[in-house]
Amino acid sequence: MIHFDNDYTEGAHEKILSRLLETNNIQMPGYGLDDYSEKARNLIKKATKKEDIDVHFLVGGTQTNLTVIAASLRPYEGVVTADSGHIHTLETGAIEAIGHKLLLLPNRDGKITAAQVQKLCDDYWSNKANMHKVQPGMVYLSNPTETGTLYSKAELIAFHKVCKDYDMKLFIDGARLGYGLVAETNDLTLEDLAQLTDVFYFGGTKLGALFGEAVIISNPEIKKGFLALTKQKGGLLAKGRTLGVQFEVLFENQFYLELSHHAVKQAMKLKNTFEALNLSLKYEAYTNQLFPIIPNKILDKLQEKYVFLKMEQEDKDHTLVRICTSWATTDENVKALTDDLYQLMRE
Amino acid sequence: MIHFDNDYTEGAHEKILSRLLETNNIQMPGYGLDDYSEKARNLIKKATKKEDIDVHFLVGGTQTNLTVIAASLRPYEGVVTADSGHIHTLETGAIEAIGHKLLLLPNRDGKITAAQVQKLCDDYWSNKANMHKVQPGMVYLSNPTETGTLYSKAELIAFHKVCKDYDMKLFIDGARLGYGLVAETNDLTLEDLAQLTDVFYFGGTKLGALFGEAVIISNPEIKKGFLALTKQKGGLLAKGRTLGVQFEVLFENQFYLELSHHAVKQAMKLKNTFEALNLSLKYEAYTNQLFPIIPNKILDKLQEKYVFLKMEQEDKDHTLVRICTSWATTDENVKALTDDLYQLMRE
Amino acid sequence: MIHFDNDYTEGAHEKILSRLLETNNIQMPGYGLDDYSEKARNLIKKATKKEDIDVHFLVGGTQTNLTVIAASLRPYEGVVTADSGHIHTLETGAIEAIGHKLLLLPNRDGKITAAQVQKLCDDYWSNKANMHKVQPGMVYLSNPTETGTLYSKAELIAFHKVCKDYDMKLFIDGARLGYGLVAETNDLTLEDLAQLTDVFYFGGTKLGALFGEAVIISNPEIKKGFLALTKQKGGLLAKGRTLGVQFEVLFENQFYLELSHHAVKQAMKLKNTFEALNLSLKYEAYTNQLFPIIPNKILDKLQEKYVFLKMEQEDKDHTLVRICTSWATTDENVKALTDDLYQLMRE
Amino acid sequence: MIHFDNDYTEGAHEKILSRLLETNNIQMPGYGLDDYSEKARNLIKKATKKEDIDVHFLVGGTQTNLTVIAASLRPYEGVVTADSGHIHTLETGAIEAIGHKLLLLPNRDGKITAAQVQKLCDDYWSNKANMHKVQPGMVYLSNPTETGTLYSKAELIAFHKVCKDYDMKLFIDGARLGYGLVAETNDLTLEDLAQLTDVFYFGGTKLGALFGEAVIISNPEIKKGFLALTKQKGGLLAKGRTLGVQFEVLFENQFYLELSHHAVKQAMKLKNTFEALNLSLKYEAYTNQLFPIIPNKILDKLQEKYVFLKMEQEDKDHTLVRICTSWATTDENVKALTDDLYQLMRE
Repeated sequence: MIHFDNDYTEGAHEKILSRLLETNNIQMPGYGLDDYSEKARNLIKKATKKEDIDVHFLVGGTQTNLTVIAASLRPYEGVVTADSGHIHTLETGAIEAIGHKLLLLPNRDGKITAAQVQKLCDDYWSNKANMHKVQPGMVYLSNPTETGTLYSKAELIAFHKVCKDYDMKLFIDGARLGYGLVAETNDLTLEDLAQLTDVFYFGGTKLGALFGEAVIISNPEIKKGFLALTKQKGGLLAKGRTLGVQFEVLFENQFYLELSHHAVKQAMKLKNTFEALNLSLKYEAYTNQLFPIIPNKILDKLQEKYVFLKMEQEDKDHTLVRICTSWATTDENVKALTDDLYQLMRE
Repeated sequence: MIHFDNDYTEGAHEKILSRLLETNNIQMPGYGLDDYSEKARNLIKKATKKEDIDVHFLVGGTQTNLTVIAASLRPYEGVVTADSGHIHTLETGAIEAIGHKLLLLPNRDGKITAAQVQKLCDDYWSNKANMHKVQPGMVYLSNPTETGTLYSKAELIAFHKVCKDYDMKLFIDGARLGYGLVAETNDLTLEDLAQLTDVFYFGGTKLGALFGEAVIISNPEIKKGFLALTKQKGGLLAKGRTLGVQFEVLFENQFYLELSHHAVKQAMKLKNTFEALNLSLKYEAYTNQLFPIIPNKILDKLQEKYVFLKMEQEDKDHTLVRICTSWATTDENVKALTDDLYQLMRE
Repeated sequence: MIHFDNDYTEGAHEKILSRLLETNNIQMPGYGLDDYSEKARNLIKKATKKEDIDVHFLVGGTQTNLTVIAASLRPYEGVVTADSGHIHTLETGAIEAIGHKLLLLPNRDGKITAAQVQKLCDDYWSNKANMHKVQPGMVYLSNPTETGTLYSKAELIAFHKVCKDYDMKLFIDGARLGYGLVAETNDLTLEDLAQLTDVFYFGGTKLGALFGEAVIISNPEIKKGFLALTKQKGGLLAKGRTLGVQFEVLFENQFYLELSHHAVKQAMKLKNTFEALNLSLKYEAYTNQLFPIIPNKILDKLQEKYVFLKMEQEDKDHTLVRICTSWATTDENVKALTDDLYQLMRE
Repeated sequence: MIHFDNDYTEGAHEKILSRLLETNNIQMPGYGLDDYSEKARNLIKKATKKEDIDVHFLVGGTQTNLTVIAASLRPYEGVVTADSGHIHTLETGAIEAIGHKLLLLPNRDGKITAAQVQKLCDDYWSNKANMHKVQPGMVYLSNPTETGTLYSKAELIAFHKVCKDYDMKLFIDGARLGYGLVAETNDLTLEDLAQLTDVFYFGGTKLGALFGEAVIISNPEIKKGFLALTKQKGGLLAKGRTLGVQFEVLFENQFYLELSHHAVKQAMKLKNTFEALNLSLKYEAYTNQLFPIIPNKILDKLQEKYVFLKMEQEDKDHTLVRICTSWATTDENVKALTDDLYQLMRE
């Protein structure tokens, strides 16, 4: 079977594995105090053009989300998020498990707006009985979102403003950030993200690493005790070198851009195919995720050979599926799927 | 500098890295549903001669401890542990952070006894006002302990009994279990551990893997929901294959035994040297950890070339240090340290 | 100002205060081990016609909700609730603060259905990737609901069934239960509640007591350690006698029914007035809560003399308000409001 | 049986119950927004001679401890406490249940010293690997301590200093504070406590109230969100008036001093008796608690008529017991016990 269901079906880019091999026998201290982690942190500071950030490497996304949120909030505060947000839908209550309520806003194509946040805050602060409600303490966005849509710089500036106005922190989950940064419609840079957020992270797991998320913290309150907190939450890797080496490779000469471009190029080829065949996409698609609506008959045939992620029944004859490309998606597999689509639609 | 301060200063055994490379491009589902994880689980079932166990692979030790304990206890229950236990001394309050109090027993050479546990339970259950106290719900042991000492099979049987008598779970942290299993004085097997505990784990991080702990659960109550809980606590690796591949290598033809033997052999060479030089060891040493008491003058010289873990001042002229060997410790480094010790002691 | 905004604006029924005075100097052990608590527990067992229940007295509603839920769930489980449920809307994230996610169902007039719960469970258990989701572990209902509506016996039987089918606990928040039991349309008894739920509570705070909620537990798993858990969560009153005395008075000769009847009678008088004046009520009203939709002009006048709870703008000219009666509502105040309503509507 | 086992065996002082009766029918808003609570807050501000404090009324001691600590610490911080501290020994892991580890110091007669705290902090901050340890974030003292001993003003100034030096909060549990303030050896005032601590509380439960602890917060960080947090933790009483009325009575004309003097006078009579009979007291006793060491033969006889709290076997023939007086201890009971002691010792 050929997997298009997600962007973590392969191991790591060969360059990363090779570097792990090369450095394997050099003795290093643990817990992120090794030279590779130090170099990777410096490369990331350079990439964000910001020296006064703290950079930490964690293993996975849920772990990162819960550690960052624990570091950011006081116990009576909650997290404002789209109701499609990963922390709400697919993390088994990880945020609630550390004691924080999610304050849900209805999403539109996976996105929320600063105006929605503003209204929520106005309602909260104008309510005299607000001791019975959870105080909004942070806004959580993911970029790209769960449905592959993107926030613009103007939108991020608006979120930044509403967060300052109501003394909230702004946090961006960048599990697929690399794929967003190379999208045709993107106007955000790592520099912008470091300036406009209190904390964000750049995902390696879906972008050529075996695992790893780089957390970039601008807000001094969140920096405080972050390493201890990571340890407490079970996220501090003994052989931190393994994270350091991987992010060193990803940020050397902006190698992550090369990987990102590859994935998005493959996705755009498939997008062209869907459009050419008049198969509509549910959401704007400029990153590595496509959400085509596929006739069930076609889908049944395709599934003999390909794995997709079924999202939901669109109507009785059509299904919404997710198709992911990645740094590892081969020309061969894209061509096969393209050919099969043409073939099946023609029949 | 030559590191003897811990057993995670190198990457992974080359055989593990090679296997990661070989399998790298094969597409696999995430979250432990891949073929490698399945094979590794089966190898471990075979090694424990027990079919009705659940095997889960987690990334690190603190993460494993907190997930297992969360899976095992009700909120009013606490964990009985030696006051030298890793969960008390070196995990930044990870267990308290998930809501459970540690019930400390004074250790002797890193160990506690079933009789101590029995007394604690008797006191608790005979106290009418016990609603003001935390109920003992689990006994946590590590084997080897923090100081490299070992529990015997007879001791484990006694712990098993007291746990049954008071309806508690028995959990063994085996972060260095491999090194214990090959100790000259050891009489425990993986089979015994699976029979006598409710849950234990076998550490890969310190035994040739990049990272990874294999959790082996016998108690059905702990099995329930364990995967979901792992996800909630941030411990479910997206590319679970990375764990599967590593444990497959470690348990194929009992490769972990080969690695363990190597480390312990190196440690025993150094032990012989210390004994020959009349440098006493604080604790019985049959695994990969030695705790020699070294004259400060000698230590100062050694530290120009070697890194040890300083434990504490033994008296004004002597220091207790920890020396670790591992699967990666070279003959060359052991010889160098041996020679230098002889040289310095002779002067 | 005359308060109709809630049902806890006065102290306690005089009979309760008198009994506190009478028993005041008799020495008693603390923490619920006093004679009054014992008598009250027995009266409640009699009222529910069930001997094998545990009865605990807690101080307040949020405290009770969080303690019961902590006692009932494992960490990966969540609570199914109406999105209008008190634990979601007005408890400052108390349930999330103890680690559990709420699984929200859209309410209709404050109620949900067993069919909705069934669908949620079907979706959860048919999803292979359910380790990324919180497992439904309990259904939380309040009766009367937040909007004063009531569940029927048939509805409760259906909830009971779906909970058994999916191994979930059924919990009823009865903060205003007394007022529900005397409603004209009610067909539930305390006996039914003890039979059909795993745990429920009977509220004293809103029904003549200074404070106090009586928790009635049928499920042995929830009984276990409940007292210790109450202490841990800060809900175990040192002078437990104060709770015992109050519930003894309330359940002696079913005194709570007398108080409940009084409140509901007063509410029905006001309901008749609203109906006579063609002022519509948003929700069916048979307990002590009314939710009339009042023209803003009238409301402005009324608010010079009365306090109501404003719920929301119904349209630009009308406002939805809550009016509560209670055991303490005087004929005089009801008459005053009735007269003023007639007067103002006539103008 | 005559109870001397604790100081909460009666209800409330009659003056408090009378005031509850008098104010009973006056309608008031809930949750501490009533007039009585406002008056009580003002009386306490006057008593501490500090205007910029926040005063909150909570129901019980454990609830207060956990709410204050939750309000004060970040998740990676712990609480420094004597190993005899109430939060460690008698609160069923309440502090761990909200995620914080206790950092235990060995007590001497129930007390710890600023020098001990200083050493703990020095060790923590000089340790490069401190991300594996819980950071000291607060010092918790109780005054009087669990064994009835008292801190002097000089000692409190030293704690204040070490807390400032290491950026920690200082919290005093004053569950029996009133009894301490009137002790012959006491040199602390409410004014001192408000100046030298970040937060402390004054206990009503043991001093004539049905229940209630007044939390006095000086530190702005702890003030923030305290009411919301109280609600979240289940400690916000709907009929807050019940707390307001009680503390109004206690602080009107410093009525609490009158109650305290009474209790301590009764204790000192018994102390004189023990001394006259050469029965030694384990700890210095100047408040309402005595810890005599009583020959078992005498104790057996006494226990036919009196209830004491047995602490531990002192040796095979003697037992350490706790004897409490309170605002409610009658001359008659003190005389009876005195006479019986003389009688039995003479035999």
